[in-house]
Amino acid sequence: MNPVDALIDALPGGRVLTDRDVIDSYARDQTYLEPGEPLCAVVAQTRDEVAATLRWASEHRVPVVPRGAGTGLAGGATAVEGCVMLSLARMTAIRELSPADEIAVVEPGVITADLDRAAREHGLMYAPDPSSYEISTIGGNLATNAGGLRCVRYGVTRDSTLGLEVVLADGRVLNTGRRTMKGVTGYDLTGLFVGSEGTLGVITAATLRLRRAPSVPPITIAAEFPSPRAAGDAVAAIVAAGCRPLLLELMDRGTLEAIDAWKNIGLEPQVRAMLIAQAEGDRPEEAALMERLCEQNGAGFVAVSGTPEETAELIGLRRLAYSAKERLGACLVEDVCVPRSALPAMITFIEEAAARHDARICTVAHAGDGNLHPVFIFDRGLPEPPPGVWAAADEVFRAALDLGGTLTGEHGVGLLKRRWLGLEAGPVVTEVQQGIKRVFDPLGILNPGKAI
Amino acid sequence: MNPVDALIDALPGGRVLTDRDVIDSYARDQTYLEPGEPLCAVVAQTRDEVAATLRWASEHRVPVVPRGAGTGLAGGATAVEGCVMLSLARMTAIRELSPADEIAVVEPGVITADLDRAAREHGLMYAPDPSSYEISTIGGNLATNAGGLRCVRYGVTRDSTLGLEVVLADGRVLNTGRRTMKGVTGYDLTGLFVGSEGTLGVITAATLRLRRAPSVPPITIAAEFPSPRAAGDAVAAIVAAGCRPLLLELMDRGTLEAIDAWKNIGLEPQVRAMLIAQAEGDRPEEAALMERLCEQNGAGFVAVSGTPEETAELIGLRRLAYSAKERLGACLVEDVCVPRSALPAMITFIEEAAARHDARICTVAHAGDGNLHPVFIFDRGLPEPPPGVWAAADEVFRAALDLGGTLTGEHGVGLLKRRWLGLEAGPVVTEVQQGIKRVFDPLGILNPGKAI
Repeated sequence: MNPVDALIDALPGGRVLTDRDVIDSYARDQTYLEPGEPLCAVVAQTRDEVAATLRWASEHRVPVVPRGAGTGLAGGATAVEGCVMLSLARMTAIRELSPADEIAVVEPGVITADLDRAAREHGLMYAPDPSSYEISTIGGNLATNAGGLRCVRYGVTRDSTLGLEVVLADGRVLNTGRRTMKGVTGYDLTGLFVGSEGTLGVITAATLRLRRAPSVPPITIAAEFPSPRAAGDAVAAIVAAGCRPLLLELMDRGTLEAIDAWKNIGLEPQVRAMLIAQAEGDRPEEAALMERLCEQNGAGFVAVSGTPEETAELIGLRRLAYSAKERLGACLVEDVCVPRSALPAMITFIEEAAARHDARICTVAHAGDGNLHPVFIFDRGLPEPPPGVWAAADEVFRAALDLGGTLTGEHGVGLLKRRWLGLEAGPVVTEVQQGIKRVFDPLGILNPGKAI
Repeated sequence: MNPVDALIDALPGGRVLTDRDVIDSYARDQTYLEPGEPLCAVVAQTRDEVAATLRWASEHRVPVVPRGAGTGLAGGATAVEGCVMLSLARMTAIRELSPADEIAVVEPGVITADLDRAAREHGLMYAPDPSSYEISTIGGNLATNAGGLRCVRYGVTRDSTLGLEVVLADGRVLNTGRRTMKGVTGYDLTGLFVGSEGTLGVITAATLRLRRAPSVPPITIAAEFPSPRAAGDAVAAIVAAGCRPLLLELMDRGTLEAIDAWKNIGLEPQVRAMLIAQAEGDRPEEAALMERLCEQNGAGFVAVSGTPEETAELIGLRRLAYSAKERLGACLVEDVCVPRSALPAMITFIEEAAARHDARICTVAHAGDGNLHPVFIFDRGLPEPPPGVWAAADEVFRAALDLGGTLTGEHGVGLLKRRWLGLEAGPVVTEVQQGIKRVFDPLGILNPGKAI
């Protein structure tokens, strides 16, 4: 029997998709990267269907590329040649939500913002909020250890993950972690799976930590600066002053122009950067301090939002930044993260690299974490970024490492950053990681060629 | 040449200790467990000396038991027969402390409280604070993923660890992690080493996250209850009300009596439990709410501390709890952690188990985390706990697991909890963990028989 027929036998009920156009719609994420041609796709609805798929894949040595909503920005879910695309997007149950223990047990296809909304009905929140959180899935967030706007205060996805249900390459089920706030029984397998980009197993459920939602609406500040560097200096001053913002986001002129071109926000010519900061609603003195520090660092205009509606509109604009850039062309998105004190230097370097190579770069940053997303925009007609973009991108990656930073703060390595991986991970790290990979995936069928 | 002579050749300068009495003083931690007889001890002062020790150990197949201050409570640093005891206690440099990036790079022998004090000179703090933090080392804290009083607010040691320098079993050096707040390049090796109890490598430096220290002294509440159950109910109410205490500690009557017998705190007969809670100094309304919730759950007397001195005295008493119990006899310390809603049930079960088996149990709890330390006290003349203690201990472990909890919240498995490990970690987890162990330690020389 041919392998696909065997899979259909194992998974009846229309779970296996074989129509070429349909399969191809599962083969890409948000990157420009050209996918390989998948053998077929599976849309799993249960853990047991995932297990059956992996048993079949092991038997037939078929590569497995797990996939959530396909909102990834590094090629982690890009199809490899001859693979099965394993979609978890239909596993959308919130199996449990316990306000008393402040945890939720969810399946990987749950949309991030849906979990957050479900938690808020109980005065709680799910903190990690990648910009794409209205369309991204928890499974994808776990695969990349996603961050977001709020993680300057609440940490990244790993910090909210207590335990996992994982189907291993051979179809066995592994349960990691716990339901408790603390626990040190055995090695931290939970943390190992988070951020492993589907290369060690397929997550079919997660026990996630919820947090108490602020009871008072936050105070939101938007400050306009004459240069990104000045905004970076304000960020450094805010951190140094001991403020603990709920979020602290930076957008450069290019980003603001992209948003203005779409949503007409009335951008004035002298504005070269904008900082959005949020203080807890019952900490007006912290909001006032952040406002003052923006002014002292050159902010020309500082607006303080009065109402939740104004705040929502402002944050909504920030969340549109990536979509606004996609309207301008194909995008190569970087995700460098530097020590917070190096943020102004990194911003300056990005501007200089763009000028040197005549590359169009728009930058947004989770500035409070030192995490920058320089987005290189190029002609959509090109099969891949032109040489000037590659050259500038290469220089930015190297500069981030030189400043004590890392290639990726929250998007993952995927396919996109493999060519720079050796600069950050030396030979001993690489050998150890490959050893771990072999423990979980001796046949090398799980998302091969990604992450490590 | 005999192996010890070869080691002395490789490590001149008195690093290798061979006097039997001296070696024996390195062979135990704080548990009653009888150690094996070490071959020798090494007191390393540099990473290269650690590497030389491990190269020698690999060559001669000598087990290596790493050791900090020996304050462990699970036998993690108990000597195994024929091992080299590798002390990191003299590696005490704080290599770097960066207020701008809120990180410190420290060697494993740094005393936990010393790092905290060094950070406070810059308005920062090192958050993890096991009760032993005035005598425990960072290396030991990393090995067990130590918690402490403040971790209800700031998380455990892993949550403050950004990167590690580790010497592998064969003497090679592995650098994991980063200096940045976020990063997802490759697998989370940092998290894997934290809590691995010296079974995967020897940590020779750590990049740790510091946090902004509260600028206003906290408000501390001490509430006396007629039963531990009532105190547990108050904890549940405080958590449910959305309070975010800086610490939330529970002591039962036995613990209070042990402290009273030592320090004469004027314990009154009707007091069966005490809760200590701390609110941020600029959140008096939260302190008032916690006070009210204690009263509503039966607290007979609630004191609110006015001064930092009073607070320090109260917290100091709590930190003495374990030492006070050690004055009463030999101790078997449990470290169960349950979902927070299960805290009252767990407290009740512990009392019942003690009564059933006529065992003397004193309990302290990091109640806000659901982490309880029932301490079984037995005659110091006995070589090991008597059958009644084992029976009660066994029932408590099983009850914690039945309640959705874990065997160990912050002390580690060590030798002490190995007999229950199989109840929590099923066969798939065990197989995977052993596979990971083999990647790092193919010869099985690193702290054999511990943790997994």
